[in-house]
Amino acid sequence: MIIARTVSQTRKAVKQARKRGKTIGLIPTMGALHKGHISLIKASLKETGFSAVSIFVNPLQFSPNEDFKKYPRKFSADEKLLKKTGVNLLFYPSVDTIYHPNHSVYVEETSLTNFLCGKSRPGHFKGVATVVAKLFNIIQPDIAFFGQKDYQQAQIIKRVTTGLNFPVKIKVMPIIREKDGIAMSSRNAYLNTQERKDALALYQSLKLAEKLAKNGCKDSGIIKRKVRTLIKAKKSARIDYVEITDIETLRPLKQIEDKALLGLAVFIGKTRLIDNTILRTKRHIR
Amino acid sequence: MIIARTVSQTRKAVKQARKRGKTIGLIPTMGALHKGHISLIKASLKETGFSAVSIFVNPLQFSPNEDFKKYPRKFSADEKLLKKTGVNLLFYPSVDTIYHPNHSVYVEETSLTNFLCGKSRPGHFKGVATVVAKLFNIIQPDIAFFGQKDYQQAQIIKRVTTGLNFPVKIKVMPIIREKDGIAMSSRNAYLNTQERKDALALYQSLKLAEKLAKNGCKDSGIIKRKVRTLIKAKKSARIDYVEITDIETLRPLKQIEDKALLGLAVFIGKTRLIDNTILRTKRHIR
Repeated sequence: MIIARTVSQTRKAVKQARKRGKTIGLIPTMGALHKGHISLIKASLKETGFSAVSIFVNPLQFSPNEDFKKYPRKFSADEKLLKKTGVNLLFYPSVDTIYHPNHSVYVEETSLTNFLCGKSRPGHFKGVATVVAKLFNIIQPDIAFFGQKDYQQAQIIKRVTTGLNFPVKIKVMPIIREKDGIAMSSRNAYLNTQERKDALALYQSLKLAEKLAKNGCKDSGIIKRKVRTLIKAKKSARIDYVEITDIETLRPLKQIEDKALLGLAVFIGKTRLIDNTILRTKRHIR
Repeated sequence: MIIARTVSQTRKAVKQARKRGKTIGLIPTMGALHKGHISLIKASLKETGFSAVSIFVNPLQFSPNEDFKKYPRKFSADEKLLKKTGVNLLFYPSVDTIYHPNHSVYVEETSLTNFLCGKSRPGHFKGVATVVAKLFNIIQPDIAFFGQKDYQQAQIIKRVTTGLNFPVKIKVMPIIREKDGIAMSSRNAYLNTQERKDALALYQSLKLAEKLAKNGCKDSGIIKRKVRTLIKAKKSARIDYVEITDIETLRPLKQIEDKALLGLAVFIGKTRLIDNTILRTKRHIR
């Protein structure tokens, strides 16, 4: 595994792989790798001939009041883990390598960003879109892999890719969960024992909503109320949002036709967790 | 010369050129080609093995009150001219090819844009940066050529290129002028006979400013006043701005040290013209 800290080292390694006829896969991460990341890496190893993982805690996607400073950084554990997977390249740049002091260029998605996390975290997706555009230009992958856990992020990156004509295919891989159902997240490390228990309410509420929809409930209001009630029963939980939206435009839906996204963000103590699922209602019999 | 109207045709042609080991040059234009464009094309033909010209009147860089609709479109003349030059590819997309109905992704430069034309034309450089990012991703040139006539645009595109790590070299070529000094511009076609005469004041004022600076005048205020006076003497002229700035940051300068940009935008009748020059003051003798 090549560990590249600069853009030119990275480009050189990718160029050589290309010369050998390899297709290039990219898995952009912020490190503190878990099984969710590993599933993306495995998909890349399967579908491409050269897999590059980037580890970069992107300051641009954190608000001043968010957890940029305390975000888990576990480089040596990550490195060890990545070596085992068979990844070809680890791009591990410094903040200065990615953002020059006079950085003044941003990529912004202006439609999907108005909903869900975009509302709660102004500037977040601008930071994400900007760094992903940079990574696409640095590594020039054929395929880039993202997790469905960050559903809105994945949709926005798809829009950025087609909107700016990046010659990159976006693959979105399923959410990976712990045995009890909690979605894998680097931020789970922030939770204490009680919070970890309370956090399970997110998954439980998704399951409840799936069941309601499957049993024919198409009224978003009813489903959201039941989800909120379940989550609010946990002492450490404070809901940021519970929303049911169109799966592509991310616009809120009052009525579910066929499919809808249920997305939620909940503070468990001080830790903001997100999760989502696709609700499928019973088809009308004609 | 290949004429490509779609992204996939374009990519295919460029890919084949790359396979033959050619370096790729891009000259993005809005058509209505003149000698200024030809100088960029000649530079590309000289420095690259495959030159692509794009013709696209980009709606995103025009405000509603600007001249998008009446902007000169002369495709058959342009095509004829390009065939003579030896250009390899003409990318001539429709608006729908470039902007899907749900387009929602924009590239923005937030520093240089605050000055000069950026102040007078809000949103203009966002439109430019977005379409240039798209063209870079569609054609993936090694070198892209821009004219110094649009000095601020060229500087912003340099920032976008490094800021988003596009693997593209930006070359900025000198202003090409008519015999009497007026800068080549597709918009000169809007001028009537009297306006064409009045428009010469832009060039004359640049020459005056160059001379003042060369003779040791370092006071921007004095130079700008003389430039304004010269231009205002023309009946059809209305000054948008006359500004002396740092050549890189584009921040206004009160005092010229060594070098500075003199940029101006003037309405001649209803036609907004821009021009610029680099002022060089006499060096201090130490």
